Amino acid sequence: MNQGSAPSAAPAGSNGHVVALCGGIGGSKLALGLYRILPADGLTVVVNTGDDFEHLGLHVSPDLDTVLYTLAGWSDPLRGWGRADETWHFMDSLEALGGPGWFRLGDRDLAMHVIRTRWLQRGETLTAFARYVGQRMGIHAHILPMSNDPVRTIVDTTDGPLAFQNYFVERRCEPVVTAIRFRGSERARPSPELSHALARPDLAAIVICPSNPYLSIDPLLSVVGTRTALSAAKAPVIAVSPLIGGKAVKGPTAKIMAELGIAATAQAIAAHYGDLLDGLVIDESDAAQVPPLGIPTEATSTLMRDMDDRRRLARHVLLFAKNIATDRAAGPGRPWQATAAGVMK
Amino acid sequence: MNQGSAPSAAPAGSNGHVVALCGGIGGSKLALGLYRILPADGLTVVVNTGDDFEHLGLHVSPDLDTVLYTLAGWSDPLRGWGRADETWHFMDSLEALGGPGWFRLGDRDLAMHVIRTRWLQRGETLTAFARYVGQRMGIHAHILPMSNDPVRTIVDTTDGPLAFQNYFVERRCEPVVTAIRFRGSERARPSPELSHALARPDLAAIVICPSNPYLSIDPLLSVVGTRTALSAAKAPVIAVSPLIGGKAVKGPTAKIMAELGIAATAQAIAAHYGDLLDGLVIDESDAAQVPPLGIPTEATSTLMRDMDDRRRLARHVLLFAKNIATDRAAGPGRPWQATAAGVMK
Repeated sequence: MNQGSAPSAAPAGSNGHVVALCGGIGGSKLALGLYRILPADGLTVVVNTGDDFEHLGLHVSPDLDTVLYTLAGWSDPLRGWGRADETWHFMDSLEALGGPGWFRLGDRDLAMHVIRTRWLQRGETLTAFARYVGQRMGIHAHILPMSNDPVRTIVDTTDGPLAFQNYFVERRCEPVVTAIRFRGSERARPSPELSHALARPDLAAIVICPSNPYLSIDPLLSVVGTRTALSAAKAPVIAVSPLIGGKAVKGPTAKIMAELGIAATAQAIAAHYGDLLDGLVIDESDAAQVPPLGIPTEATSTLMRDMDDRRRLARHVLLFAKNIATDRAAGPGRPWQATAAGVMK
Repeated sequence: MNQGSAPSAAPAGSNGHVVALCGGIGGSKLALGLYRILPADGLTVVVNTGDDFEHLGLHVSPDLDTVLYTLAGWSDPLRGWGRADETWHFMDSLEALGGPGWFRLGDRDLAMHVIRTRWLQRGETLTAFARYVGQRMGIHAHILPMSNDPVRTIVDTTDGPLAFQNYFVERRCEPVVTAIRFRGSERARPSPELSHALARPDLAAIVICPSNPYLSIDPLLSVVGTRTALSAAKAPVIAVSPLIGGKAVKGPTAKIMAELGIAATAQAIAAHYGDLLDGLVIDESDAAQVPPLGIPTEATSTLMRDMDDRRRLARHVLLFAKNIATDRAAGPGRPWQATAAGVMK
């Protein structure tokens, strides 16, 4: 593992298209970094829709909206979700009239749900909606839902099974998780647009963003055909571990790992993604304890406090991917396979 | 006609229940006056739903909401529709995302449409929703939609047929009206709650508020059985003319009458309601030109600028109704039938 390699300062990704797999808040930070350093049309973000749900008769897609708002520069920098300069008069009124208040829909945010619901009701796909609204918001990346077919994340807990938002928002991740399921995934397929993106001949890297592997990336991998298409893609698949010093920056990743009996370590992340990965980026704080992982591993600071952090990590990840691709092209007997520590040349 | 009779200052309506038929803004002013002078549970307001429409996937009931907001004291005093202290962040966002901006839904108002749509989608009636939300808003009158069955006002114009809101809001009443139809009225029935209200043995008066007779009251009368039930009711039916000096205070009443070839006069209003009426209240400015109408006619100031005006007119109307009922009870040969001018004793 190469802890010291400083990433190139040159714009990365000019050599090909990048696909990023992403959940919501944590992952979208790296997606934004990639978006800012890649040329127009250089990035496709594939977004978890296992968190989608029907609320108040509206189709709500929390992760999709987080990615849209983040890339458009519309997201709230402090709250971490929803839109900047948001107001809550609808919610106040809804609760005054006896409506449910546990899931907060801001006045500005509400427009997204209303328009999406209309599109879906008239038979359009979620992919077509995301394309429309992304263009309307001035985003020059392709933002693709993981599938047009409904997949719903169910969290089995010691309090019984909970739909994702009931676990995550209403119950604040408090119930103890015993298993996580993706209802409908056995009938879900990647969209033609996603299949096309993964089959691009100019694909330079597939980046699994530092989202929760169990709640945000697994639903995406549960769609029939996606994992196979990722493995068959020309480009290396690089994951960025969501752990920093054995903890998650935000969200329940470490808590869930503990409840599922998994140590919150980089090894566990590598083992979870298994043979899908061609490389893993971990935080430098976790590097000391990492035993050989059997794949190229790169340590750097993965904490993204500001835009510079996002860009820097994005550059580092793409450089790492490029080196792996170069080694691959050199044929069998790649250096990292020859060493127990998986050192990248 | 008795132009000079000052209404009693005593609280009116203590002698029985009052049913008011009402459209939106104009009519709801008198409904509010009646509400303020009658005891709790003393008033039932029957509201036009011919203006209802589906917009953005939501069931919007403009007149129902105007009556609810007016009676609850939530309505905007200046704009004349919608809620006080309203904000428009949803609309701004909707238009930024390419949604339609011609029908304005305020952030607070939106909660009403979202909750109503959920009620209807799970099979509840509009009447049940109005009862729920009215109680929630602290309104102690019964507010009844004219029917639970869909009736949609279609305005035939020289530009072709237009759904009501497209005529009224989107086209600002500019197209020339050739006819007005109520789609679905032949299959619509009054709700059991409305039939019950009109059959009450304690009914003291039925008041047709100064709403647009053609656009706001006719849809209500087009529901199969309502006109018969109104005629069969024990109480006198009193209309308040929406005209003042041959013009409407607000809205297209006079314009539509001209386009339909009807003179904008009290006679035309009386003729339009025909044998349904037991009495007509007109503005004093129209009294001079009124020839014999064949029914009791009462002239007073019908302009309602403030709450005192609303209360005063409400008292006057109920006193007029009481006098007609008293004359009726005196048996055949009622004074107003014996005189050409229809003078009320």
